[in-house]
Amino acid sequence: MSGPPPVEPVRAGAPGTADHECDVLVVGFGCAGAAAAYEAAAAGARVIVLERAGGPGGSSALSGGEIYLGGGTALQKACGFDDTPDDMYAYLVAALGPHADTGKIRLYCDGSVEHFQWLCDLGVPFNGRLYDAPTWMPPTEDGLMWLGENAWPYNTLARPAPRGHRPAARSFAGGLLMEKLVAAARAAGARDHADTLATNLVVGDGGRVSGAVARRYGGRVVYRARRAVVLTTGGFVDSAEMLAQHAPVLLGHGKVSDGLDDGGGIRMAAALGAATRRMSAVQVALTALPALVVRGMLVNALGQRFVNEDVYPGAFSAAAVLHQPGPYWAVIDEAGYEDIPERDRWGVRPTYAAETLAELEAELGMPAGALETTIAVYNRHAEHGEDPYFHKDARWLRPLRPPFAAVDPRLGFGAGGRTDPGEATGVAGFTLGGLHTTADGEVLDQLGRPIPGLYAAGRAASGMHGEGYVSGTSLGDGTFFGRRAGRAAARRP
Amino acid sequence: MSGPPPVEPVRAGAPGTADHECDVLVVGFGCAGAAAAYEAAAAGARVIVLERAGGPGGSSALSGGEIYLGGGTALQKACGFDDTPDDMYAYLVAALGPHADTGKIRLYCDGSVEHFQWLCDLGVPFNGRLYDAPTWMPPTEDGLMWLGENAWPYNTLARPAPRGHRPAARSFAGGLLMEKLVAAARAAGARDHADTLATNLVVGDGGRVSGAVARRYGGRVVYRARRAVVLTTGGFVDSAEMLAQHAPVLLGHGKVSDGLDDGGGIRMAAALGAATRRMSAVQVALTALPALVVRGMLVNALGQRFVNEDVYPGAFSAAAVLHQPGPYWAVIDEAGYEDIPERDRWGVRPTYAAETLAELEAELGMPAGALETTIAVYNRHAEHGEDPYFHKDARWLRPLRPPFAAVDPRLGFGAGGRTDPGEATGVAGFTLGGLHTTADGEVLDQLGRPIPGLYAAGRAASGMHGEGYVSGTSLGDGTFFGRRAGRAAARRP
Repeated sequence: MSGPPPVEPVRAGAPGTADHECDVLVVGFGCAGAAAAYEAAAAGARVIVLERAGGPGGSSALSGGEIYLGGGTALQKACGFDDTPDDMYAYLVAALGPHADTGKIRLYCDGSVEHFQWLCDLGVPFNGRLYDAPTWMPPTEDGLMWLGENAWPYNTLARPAPRGHRPAARSFAGGLLMEKLVAAARAAGARDHADTLATNLVVGDGGRVSGAVARRYGGRVVYRARRAVVLTTGGFVDSAEMLAQHAPVLLGHGKVSDGLDDGGGIRMAAALGAATRRMSAVQVALTALPALVVRGMLVNALGQRFVNEDVYPGAFSAAAVLHQPGPYWAVIDEAGYEDIPERDRWGVRPTYAAETLAELEAELGMPAGALETTIAVYNRHAEHGEDPYFHKDARWLRPLRPPFAAVDPRLGFGAGGRTDPGEATGVAGFTLGGLHTTADGEVLDQLGRPIPGLYAAGRAASGMHGEGYVSGTSLGDGTFFGRRAGRAAARRP
Repeated sequence: MSGPPPVEPVRAGAPGTADHECDVLVVGFGCAGAAAAYEAAAAGARVIVLERAGGPGGSSALSGGEIYLGGGTALQKACGFDDTPDDMYAYLVAALGPHADTGKIRLYCDGSVEHFQWLCDLGVPFNGRLYDAPTWMPPTEDGLMWLGENAWPYNTLARPAPRGHRPAARSFAGGLLMEKLVAAARAAGARDHADTLATNLVVGDGGRVSGAVARRYGGRVVYRARRAVVLTTGGFVDSAEMLAQHAPVLLGHGKVSDGLDDGGGIRMAAALGAATRRMSAVQVALTALPALVVRGMLVNALGQRFVNEDVYPGAFSAAAVLHQPGPYWAVIDEAGYEDIPERDRWGVRPTYAAETLAELEAELGMPAGALETTIAVYNRHAEHGEDPYFHKDARWLRPLRPPFAAVDPRLGFGAGGRTDPGEATGVAGFTLGGLHTTADGEVLDQLGRPIPGLYAAGRAASGMHGEGYVSGTSLGDGTFFGRRAGRAAARRP
């Protein structure tokens, strides 16, 4: 079979004609699907989870594993931080904005302490230690990390507290998290069918969604869901066609996914008339080293600074990729580079080095005097511990002195990096837009009315995010609103 | 009746039960609807056009009236320009990009000479004179204007030629254009029903769209379309709800519309499972005076330049509003201000004036030294007729000398301007995203297959635009692809 499967809704057959029956059918066994399946099963519903891959996990299992939580979790307290839901709310509304979903964020913040406890109860391990340095991912098994809360302007909007909660794993922790979530869903009674790709929603009387048609090993399998279908199929970064229509900024860049985030669930629901939301919103990560740029600067193709480099790395990435002319450069001096702890260097070495800024800016193809001007202004203020343009914290401000170096993010991390910057763009990302849902996961139609029997959560839905993103809000939003969707689906008559 | 009308598709009734029958039903009598109605009627179809307002015209009639045309039109030749479709194509792909629709642009450029002639044949008058100065809208009745073709980087990608074709009217020419288009559609045989708001599409056998249900004076009217329905209902800038879901950047800003662009047609089709495209794309106009910024500079809240100020004014507006921290300021010196011809001043006067840049930047709330640095760099290069950062044309480069002035775009145009900048944002715009269509206006479903009997054109559809915009491409795209949709609709069996 070639091309994408048809997505149009299928009319329900006669009762008893389905191959499998359940109360709640969950489509996709990543973090949102596991959370929905757990809660629905725990509420007494008979649950089947479909997963198109050979086993559960999805993109969640390949992720860093950070979960954005706060408001005074046990882990925060263990690390000596006294957080509140209101401070968490104020931060997230700003960091996930502009135009974040304040209603969802409010619920998320108010429920965050309980949600963390739920994860602990499922056996997800967290170490009570803070990793206190700018990074994409701690090289330790520390359980808590900053995700931009202590950087301007966020530190003026809310009392800073670190809220990145990391399962105890060295580097990528998503696998460990998913292991626990999948085990919990199964223990609660959910059954799962792997290698099973849902292709069409089944619609019964009154437009109620009552199941799905799937393909398994080339065969057609029909599932009947007596109460509801929950779509947790992920985003659409792996569909070049959907990217072209909705989020073309990601075309040509790296994909942060398991390769199966093709938007199938979004399309199945949209074929029914479901509304989508913020389909252009994306997360982007620039392969720039936080520990390096925070000690130096990040500049655009014209040598201009444009952000305080101590923000959450995804925020400086978005500021660059979505708004500045590239290529981008991480610029530092020798003293700054030497100051980076070895464990935070990630194998990054200067791409260009020069005794003078005139040499360096010429190497980088910038207008003559561009870097000289930027660094003269930076140094003039840094001498007084100030950054009146972007308000980088004084802890990181120091005049930059020769010799200087520039790092090309297109070369990637790791010892030696790539030899040919043409191989990569230095950018990878995923999509944030999706089905328009209520806080209980009900999928809405073009006029904002719930489509009976249809729920969604995780990246198949538009969650808390406006145009901003913070690490941990995908797993966080996916599991939190996945749970709510699972409970609501199980409650349906 | 309160709230928006329901949009879900309605099943077709028995033959003969409709209140009105036609071959092609056009929904919306703006420029795209008029063009579609004209061509369908000229092809022999019986055509009815529905218009929710009291008469035809829509947002098109309130517009400036510029139509982006080229490739060697008679008007270009009369003004001494030797343009080609390929140069026009190269410009539009860049100016309407990134991610513009190259297939639609190719057709548009190849058909542009004929399209201009068609407008002339309908009686739209154009004067064979070029208005050769940067402006939002010429204060004359000159028929041709530049729309960024002669600015960097576009002048390096294609041989520049002015392509803004303006009907002969002083200031806003959209009314004159619509008068001619409406008269032509009626003369060709199309009938139109005013005060008639289409609320639902009617769907017959095999999912074929076969009409629409409308409201007129509180009553329900059913239209049967034997061949096709063409949606030319405009964009969605007047729906705060749709803006929040898809293009929140426009929330709170001024709307460029007739107040009725509420996305109704997009929602009716989406309720059927139609695909949308680029729903976040917008046009924005900043109330900054092109004649002033081109002689000085446009800076962001930090006093940084970010664009060559001789681009199409919508391009400097987008560069500011979509990518730079505001507020924005037009900065000029006394000599530059005095150099602006009176007719290009539009009543704009300096908001702040100062003998030194230190005073001025303090007035504007910028970091100390911000404007001083920017203008020192600018002047250093301008002395040599160069702008290595943004490549503004040498014609406009001159060192800026005291005394200086800054203009706040939030104050608007016109003598005196607004007294309170809080009254307005200085930004107005409209939406560019809409239904995903083929070049013949067929509306596509979630898998890119045409929905039988359903067409769309104008701002209800996603047209040639990627993330960029140029004046004249709404009326141009709307009439050009409206004609194609009308012809294709009339051809259906």
